[in-house]
Amino acid sequence: MSRYDDLVHRIRDRGSFLCVGLDPDRARLPQHLGTEPQAILDFCETIIQHTAEYAVSYKINLAFFEVLGSRSMELFAAVREMIPSDCLLIADAKRGDIGNSSRMYAETFFDTYQCDAVTVAPYMGKDSVQAFLDHQDHWTVLLALTSNSGSQDFQRLSLQAGGQVYEQVLHQSMRWADKSQLMYVVGATHPEMFQQLRNIIGDRFLLVPGVGAQGGTVAEVCAHGLTDDVGLLINSSRSIIYASSSADFGEAAAAAARDLRDQMRDVAASQLLRR
Amino acid sequence: MSRYDDLVHRIRDRGSFLCVGLDPDRARLPQHLGTEPQAILDFCETIIQHTAEYAVSYKINLAFFEVLGSRSMELFAAVREMIPSDCLLIADAKRGDIGNSSRMYAETFFDTYQCDAVTVAPYMGKDSVQAFLDHQDHWTVLLALTSNSGSQDFQRLSLQAGGQVYEQVLHQSMRWADKSQLMYVVGATHPEMFQQLRNIIGDRFLLVPGVGAQGGTVAEVCAHGLTDDVGLLINSSRSIIYASSSADFGEAAAAAARDLRDQMRDVAASQLLRR
Repeated sequence: MSRYDDLVHRIRDRGSFLCVGLDPDRARLPQHLGTEPQAILDFCETIIQHTAEYAVSYKINLAFFEVLGSRSMELFAAVREMIPSDCLLIADAKRGDIGNSSRMYAETFFDTYQCDAVTVAPYMGKDSVQAFLDHQDHWTVLLALTSNSGSQDFQRLSLQAGGQVYEQVLHQSMRWADKSQLMYVVGATHPEMFQQLRNIIGDRFLLVPGVGAQGGTVAEVCAHGLTDDVGLLINSSRSIIYASSSADFGEAAAAAARDLRDQMRDVAASQLLRR
Repeated sequence: MSRYDDLVHRIRDRGSFLCVGLDPDRARLPQHLGTEPQAILDFCETIIQHTAEYAVSYKINLAFFEVLGSRSMELFAAVREMIPSDCLLIADAKRGDIGNSSRMYAETFFDTYQCDAVTVAPYMGKDSVQAFLDHQDHWTVLLALTSNSGSQDFQRLSLQAGGQVYEQVLHQSMRWADKSQLMYVVGATHPEMFQQLRNIIGDRFLLVPGVGAQGGTVAEVCAHGLTDDVGLLINSSRSIIYASSSADFGEAAAAAARDLRDQMRDVAASQLLRR
């Protein structure tokens, strides 16, 4: 079974294409956990235990680990170990450098930390992405059209040859790897762009951040972005992990994740059926 | 004195605008050092001791530290501490994410590790860069036109409104911060582009990688890129740190750094004079 088919299978098995984003901000942890590094582990463990039933993927944001200082990667590794083995584990690192440096980043996330996928920034072009694609048993998740306001600044510039910069990123990178190895980040804040995107990338998977705190909705994303094989991993971070700042934050996270999962089941009922 | 003037002063004081790039690849260390983490520290310490006389800046490449596993950031911090305090310390991390994540990266490199500068990828636009610029006492080094072959893929796409993508990155970001806070990465492999670049960015500083192993030369970069205030930090990594793979690697690094410094003094004699 190809890695593409395997992901579709996992999604249908779980009846969910929810990706839970782990952005454990020390300043936003429930007070009773404290602010020591152990609090990060306790927080993530509770969130994962309470959401695993509803999620098919977890995305760990490296920014919130690196800031923890000398123990940062030990803490990242510990959280990485908490992710259920049947969930797709995405290292949200947004790396990208010249070939020999990108090779180190790829080795870090794919080999050292055994992540299934890593997010990569396209600005430096093919050789900066190729080092990740050389790990053919893993997913490279290339930034295309991000969810933030700054996505307007460069990604959406119109090109002389037609189309916009992010479309050219899609067109070119499509030739670098197939749908079992390369997926794209496209923000939920651009639902009107999904149909146009699908014309370029066919049924490739999209990792879609921006649902919840950033304003996107499951219904909008699905209305324009679903394929017969689902083709979406919808990520929500803050609306799940900070659903409550009290002792019940695990239960609140579960409720928020369940709600998103249920929305997915409503909107994508036929796509989630096993074939 | 503005941070811009301070950098110009340091360059004239040292008579050099050489940045030594620390990319300590375990597979390329002199054999007698071994391959344990301590070997990375020994290697970097020797390189720094032997090149400090010729360099005004050091650039530490995070890719080569992250790959070292759980102790990676402890090792990075140890090397960071070895950098002479009168040298500009650049964390070459090429980070960039939505605002709340970029804030964590900025805090990591500017506050936790007390770096003077960090390299940032522009693809995600203003809010992804702003989090770094909010640290007004530090340098943000934005990727513009990189030294690798992949720079052709997206950075040099022609825009409908005129110019290329990297020029638009320069035009827009110029409005985000002044010349004491924002400099740009422009590869030495594009010497013919420097004059055009200067028309956009005036006398802002450029961090110029790609001299040495990647094929650029000091003479070519200076011929087109020098300003009255120098305006360049020319980086070389591999041609200095791997100048020898034997026990004399420190002396060989010193010779390579001295040679680049001497080339700078030849080509930029008048710019290096104190005013």
